[in-house]
Amino acid sequence: MRMSEVLRQLRQQQATAGARPRLLERFESFLPTDDATPLISLGEGFTPLIHARRLGRAIGCPLLHLKMETQNPTGSSKDRGMVLVVARALEEGSRALICVSTGSTAASAAAYGAHTGMEVIVVAPRADIAAATSILRAEAAGAHVVAVDGGWADAHAAVADLVAAPDLARPVRRVDPVGPLSIEGQKTAAFEVCEDLGGAPDHLAVPVDDGADLTAYWQGFGEYRAARLVETVPVMLGFQTATADRTGHRPISERAIRARDDSGGRIDAVTEEQIASAYRDIRRHEGLSCDPRSAASVAGVRKLASQGAIDPGGTIVCVLTGHGLADPEAAGGESAHPRLEAAATATGIRRAVGW
Amino acid sequence: MRMSEVLRQLRQQQATAGARPRLLERFESFLPTDDATPLISLGEGFTPLIHARRLGRAIGCPLLHLKMETQNPTGSSKDRGMVLVVARALEEGSRALICVSTGSTAASAAAYGAHTGMEVIVVAPRADIAAATSILRAEAAGAHVVAVDGGWADAHAAVADLVAAPDLARPVRRVDPVGPLSIEGQKTAAFEVCEDLGGAPDHLAVPVDDGADLTAYWQGFGEYRAARLVETVPVMLGFQTATADRTGHRPISERAIRARDDSGGRIDAVTEEQIASAYRDIRRHEGLSCDPRSAASVAGVRKLASQGAIDPGGTIVCVLTGHGLADPEAAGGESAHPRLEAAATATGIRRAVGW
Repeated sequence: MRMSEVLRQLRQQQATAGARPRLLERFESFLPTDDATPLISLGEGFTPLIHARRLGRAIGCPLLHLKMETQNPTGSSKDRGMVLVVARALEEGSRALICVSTGSTAASAAAYGAHTGMEVIVVAPRADIAAATSILRAEAAGAHVVAVDGGWADAHAAVADLVAAPDLARPVRRVDPVGPLSIEGQKTAAFEVCEDLGGAPDHLAVPVDDGADLTAYWQGFGEYRAARLVETVPVMLGFQTATADRTGHRPISERAIRARDDSGGRIDAVTEEQIASAYRDIRRHEGLSCDPRSAASVAGVRKLASQGAIDPGGTIVCVLTGHGLADPEAAGGESAHPRLEAAATATGIRRAVGW
Repeated sequence: MRMSEVLRQLRQQQATAGARPRLLERFESFLPTDDATPLISLGEGFTPLIHARRLGRAIGCPLLHLKMETQNPTGSSKDRGMVLVVARALEEGSRALICVSTGSTAASAAAYGAHTGMEVIVVAPRADIAAATSILRAEAAGAHVVAVDGGWADAHAAVADLVAAPDLARPVRRVDPVGPLSIEGQKTAAFEVCEDLGGAPDHLAVPVDDGADLTAYWQGFGEYRAARLVETVPVMLGFQTATADRTGHRPISERAIRARDDSGGRIDAVTEEQIASAYRDIRRHEGLSCDPRSAASVAGVRKLASQGAIDPGGTIVCVLTGHGLADPEAAGGESAHPRLEAAATATGIRRAVGW
């Protein structure tokens, strides 16, 4: 490389070092995009990886880290897949998005649709729509919400049937969080974990849900290893309750099962009580909040570490996949101390807190 | 520079280009820290700047950008000041934090206190605590909440009195969002705006609140210009309702008034209706959500642009200072379309949406 070229690269890097990169640009060489792909962004990705020292000590894992997917634009890791799906849909001439969801996929699709001027249709069983505040968020972002008779399988089948119709009013793209393109976008979270740690962790734990996270992280770690950007890949861990309520109410994908097997990992059950305890401790020890379901990753690691099933001294990353804006509890939670009352004086306050 | 040195720098930059920087490290040369300051982080700062093309067209400002402070760890710009205040407090031997707040300052102090193992005391008038869900978040993070008799002025006076006491059980640091150290941390948002735009914007708009944002952004832009990192500074704009409910219920700081005057800017009133309309349009046109109070920045820019009081063609940044997790509306909002019902078939859905 010639000196002038080296200096040009140096200047370029220095000039752009400070800007917050767009996900689609930052990992361009690992994504199925081309020069015609619009580089849309709502600020997805580049989420923090927090070394949770106090929580880690509490569960006996000193190198516990939390991947804060809660800090995505709509509060969940779904935004990573959505930005790629919507960018490609725009590039290919689609002008509408359709999804089956009452949760974070609905909220994310509605947001990216609003930002890019695409029509968004959210379909879900009538019985499940009522309580879902993510549906309210989607409607506030301009989505059309269609409550259908029947169950989730019926809704999925109807939407698959619809997008296959030859005579639609406008080109429509189905958004599916376990679809290959969504996984391509979501895998970028694994790249970020490697960048922040300077290598792959020993273990990566996620809530199982529909298997999208297990699949996407495993693909991402594998691609970074193939590119020689990391030397190792983590053991993949997935956790859920025995009666887990999954996104779109679909079974765990086969790719997620393969990710578990190929990594020598495991998918294990945690109890509601273990999740509630982890959810409380994440707030109590680190001040961070998440969707209670996300806390399954921490609950599971605590369980396996206490059983000696994983090395508690290893580098462990627990993914907090969503913020739980849909969850009223996200605003509060269990209080650590009784509410105190006092006269409005220094003495009053000191007496109240025992100083 | 010798070739080997150039290549060493190149390698170094390439090796670290991908890691998400910590706020206290990224802007170290502009912050009052030293080698002994603990570089704590909950992933504050480095928030997205979104070019809001559709919202911009809707209000006649094509270069409208939104600074998403909503994506800070506790959902507000207060985290920028908090990380610096808490890091310095730890360095100086403090083991407790105390603040007067029922809002984002309470939630932020509780989170950073939990992460660093500091005791946190939140003081507020009993009458104002009841409805504040930020108080619930603070309690969930382990803060002691003290409801005092009397008003905000009484609470502020009592806390000022308490921290001055010579015989406290443990060294305590008062957290004050308009204090100099908080402003030093919060000014980093201005640096990020400059990095992302490649220069300073023509106008920067914030909700007035207690004046902390006006003060901090103005200081940040001034420091970047003094360092010759930007050539210009923006006109500062602050907006609020005529009956604005301010953080800590204190008057606008004198420094904020000076920021307005020195920048040739203005502080103007917007109506509740104008704010509600802006709040709705931010969701409708960009899919982004915020604390309704944050929408005052967009409401004000729309008002001034329509009056010809600002150049609508300029680069305009509106800061969305908080997520409004405390606000139930943050989960939903006004729906753009009626809820539709359909049979679970492609035909049923197509009939419902008019395709």
